[in-house]
Amino acid sequence: MKGNIIVGQSGGPTAVINSSLAGVYKTAKDRGVTKVYGMLNGIQGFLEERYIDLSDYIKNDLDIELLKRTPSAFLGACRYKLPDIHKDKELYEKIFEILNKLDIECFVYIGGNDSMDTIKKLSDYAIVTGQTQRFIGVPKTIDNDLALTDHTPGYGSAAKYIGTATKEVIRDSMGLVYNKGLVTVIEVMGRNAGWLTGATALAKGEDCEGPDFIYLPEVIFDLDNFLEKVGKQLAKKKSVIAAVSEGIKIADGRYVCELSANVEYVDAFGHKQLTGAANYLANRLSEKFGCKTRTVELSTLQRSAAHLSSLVDINEAFQVGGAAVKAADEGDTGKMVVIDRVSDDPYQCSTGIYDVHKISNVEKVVPREWITKDGSNVTEEFLDYVRPLIQGDLAPITVGGIPRHLTMIRHK
Amino acid sequence: MKGNIIVGQSGGPTAVINSSLAGVYKTAKDRGVTKVYGMLNGIQGFLEERYIDLSDYIKNDLDIELLKRTPSAFLGACRYKLPDIHKDKELYEKIFEILNKLDIECFVYIGGNDSMDTIKKLSDYAIVTGQTQRFIGVPKTIDNDLALTDHTPGYGSAAKYIGTATKEVIRDSMGLVYNKGLVTVIEVMGRNAGWLTGATALAKGEDCEGPDFIYLPEVIFDLDNFLEKVGKQLAKKKSVIAAVSEGIKIADGRYVCELSANVEYVDAFGHKQLTGAANYLANRLSEKFGCKTRTVELSTLQRSAAHLSSLVDINEAFQVGGAAVKAADEGDTGKMVVIDRVSDDPYQCSTGIYDVHKISNVEKVVPREWITKDGSNVTEEFLDYVRPLIQGDLAPITVGGIPRHLTMIRHK
Repeated sequence: MKGNIIVGQSGGPTAVINSSLAGVYKTAKDRGVTKVYGMLNGIQGFLEERYIDLSDYIKNDLDIELLKRTPSAFLGACRYKLPDIHKDKELYEKIFEILNKLDIECFVYIGGNDSMDTIKKLSDYAIVTGQTQRFIGVPKTIDNDLALTDHTPGYGSAAKYIGTATKEVIRDSMGLVYNKGLVTVIEVMGRNAGWLTGATALAKGEDCEGPDFIYLPEVIFDLDNFLEKVGKQLAKKKSVIAAVSEGIKIADGRYVCELSANVEYVDAFGHKQLTGAANYLANRLSEKFGCKTRTVELSTLQRSAAHLSSLVDINEAFQVGGAAVKAADEGDTGKMVVIDRVSDDPYQCSTGIYDVHKISNVEKVVPREWITKDGSNVTEEFLDYVRPLIQGDLAPITVGGIPRHLTMIRHK
Repeated sequence: MKGNIIVGQSGGPTAVINSSLAGVYKTAKDRGVTKVYGMLNGIQGFLEERYIDLSDYIKNDLDIELLKRTPSAFLGACRYKLPDIHKDKELYEKIFEILNKLDIECFVYIGGNDSMDTIKKLSDYAIVTGQTQRFIGVPKTIDNDLALTDHTPGYGSAAKYIGTATKEVIRDSMGLVYNKGLVTVIEVMGRNAGWLTGATALAKGEDCEGPDFIYLPEVIFDLDNFLEKVGKQLAKKKSVIAAVSEGIKIADGRYVCELSANVEYVDAFGHKQLTGAANYLANRLSEKFGCKTRTVELSTLQRSAAHLSSLVDINEAFQVGGAAVKAADEGDTGKMVVIDRVSDDPYQCSTGIYDVHKISNVEKVVPREWITKDGSNVTEEFLDYVRPLIQGDLAPITVGGIPRHLTMIRHK
């Protein structure tokens, strides 16, 4: 590659999004690219000409190792949707002006569904206007809802955290016994896809029964049936655990969290920010059974707990970053790197590359057959799919007992 | 020791309460004790004659290692307060009848302030009635509020988790930028003592600014001042972090969480269960500044995240368990094992033993001089005290990517 590279990060944080950034940087440098720029806050910052030369921040191999272990976009991210090309040609002209000024040959964007839309539009514009820059997408989302790739980097670490935290919450809930029992409702991220919520089942093993009930957004949530099931379980055991997706909906299409009128925020893509399903259900349970209830919202840690990242996930995130540079170098554009599962047992994956037009704006949900018939748990097939993705650890590099990250603050 | 030992666990879970149990068991066996019984759900289960022979569950050295890494009371705990002796002599007679039946020479109780009250009453009763059993307390509480001991086992691991999680939440909050800024309010356990909330400052380092504000329950909370401070900070940076104790109170004595009428539960010791301070403050901030807000309740994971335990803490928990058996063997009763800090740098501690009458029902809070003058952060002295307690890791023993615990389920 004769020109330079610019890389950006977009959308919600993951624990390994910077491992992909490290993969882009390392592979670009190994291939002799002169400058690897990082746009700050994605395409939004790029439009304001806010970018850095990554070599000012990544100075040696130890920095690469720290970057792999640093959660949340090192470069900052954005939720910015490019307008359709015909609606704002000037904006596209401005983007390409900046690209030309920096002598960019390859534009890499690490993100989810919405980010792939950016890659699609920019590569379309380049082709239509006869320009030669290449645009490659690198998948990233804890939600695991991107089509065509077996799974997305970020999901494995989130699943490992969720499985581990669920197991520890279950242990905690068994410490004290309450007269009328205790129901713990764990709320997990995932608006339309239950990949994250299903990962609570990873807590199950020879030493732990796992959650009693797991409700994914793929199945309509029946409140009466839920209350009845939990009631029956409370008669059998003193501590009952239910894991629910933030995105579970009742038959009339309303989110469970909307029943308690707790919808706060709509993002630039028109997505509602959902929270409160667990609290609503806990209140209903406590009213009906007089039991003690507790809610655990796994909060932003489920996407940022890099101290518990999966080694498989970190490595794959690094690989897809590198594969993006390789693909651009070989002339690809308008493509996203994907992960193909070559074998289940032993687990083996390789990277591939697909046309981004086939990927963007399609959400991959959990297949119905991986959810139990009554809709209150996941099957062994689901677990067989997830387990390989959570294997191994990359020990945090700690200073004073706390994980060290690579951040821009160090260099101020 | 010619007789047997019985050991129980009481009060809220910690990540290392079972390391103390392992220390009791191992030391007892090394000293040739025939039977080590475990009472199920503490003194409450003991009164129902629910107990196990621990050797049925701890079968080898690997089980000891698993037990050290298993959070929340292996034996189950209780919140049961013994009545005063003169109010229910029959109850005490029943307890000693069971002790005699099992040929118990030493009764070890692992717990916090309330549990030391149990040790005090039982040892008083034995002395008054001329009986020879020995009663020893082993300190345990994430709250670190026990008097006379430098710190309590369980606190170091909680502090390590809180510091790490806070740092990851701070990283996460910097990923996306919001027009009017983002304020993240982290709510931490600790009703009257700010040891846990202060531990959020551990996030601070060369690579992280740490929380902007930290509010401990030791200082009266001034809402207007808080809003003003956060407003000024929002003018300077796009992501502001405030950590607050669940127990912060305003000048008239009301808890901040009570301002939103969210008090749910009073336990057997008359303690209110507090939650909701962060939500209340986030709502006020969002009203006043139109900023985006996020609340992170560290939930029960702050006391149960054994996957991130401090090695120092695990080892000290093990040592105080062993020291309890040794003390009883040497004739002590009505005592609690304590940790004495011999040296700060290098950190060195040894175990000691104190009269439980001096310990029970006294809450140790954070010294005022370890909190900044304006009451919105902790000082370097606070951090110097905490840092040695969070050092080192004991890698989880994982099966299928998830930590394995020692639980009774395995043996069903």
